[in-house]
Amino acid sequence: MSEEPTKDQNVIYIGRKPVMSYVLAVITSLNMPDVDALVLKARGRAITTAVDVAEITRRRFVDTIKVDRIEIGTEEVEGMDGRARNVSTIEIDLKR
Amino acid sequence: MSEEPTKDQNVIYIGRKPVMSYVLAVITSLNMPDVDALVLKARGRAITTAVDVAEITRRRFVDTIKVDRIEIGTEEVEGMDGRARNVSTIEIDLKR
Repeated sequence: MSEEPTKDQNVIYIGRKPVMSYVLAVITSLNMPDVDALVLKARGRAITTAVDVAEITRRRFVDTIKVDRIEIGTEEVEGMDGRARNVSTIEIDLKR
Repeated sequence: MSEEPTKDQNVIYIGRKPVMSYVLAVITSLNMPDVDALVLKARGRAITTAVDVAEITRRRFVDTIKVDRIEIGTEEVEGMDGRARNVSTIEIDLKR
């Protein structure tokens, strides 16, 4: 992976860890004084996990955290067989 | 299932069928003269499928179909053990 620009400190990539570990990461981030927004990014099967993370966080902290914007897209990734295939992506913006 | 109001003819529920069968349903619906918008609804693991359906449809018909609005939510469902549990939901509005 190449070096990310500074603002990507506010991106949480959702993968295969348990949902609650991402929820904890979101809450930790949004409790930092200089962070009032962050983006959950996921692709493929992890899209469902990203929605779970957003929903669990929002429902537990209903007064302070809002889902601001949701975008979906497609990325080309290299499959196991070396051939390119498309995978869906999601970005969920959370705001404090 | 109870009888649905008329506007729910424009709702496509995404479940466990192959993605392309839903894509076909979307295209068929949006080709009808009186339909210029529809909603994909999914919950749990099918959320990823719903995003796939929206993306495949949008990319194949890039000039005519747009993703208009995406909303996520939570529903309470009864689990196998009879206890209530929460499941995440998604609604994706497609417009012609």
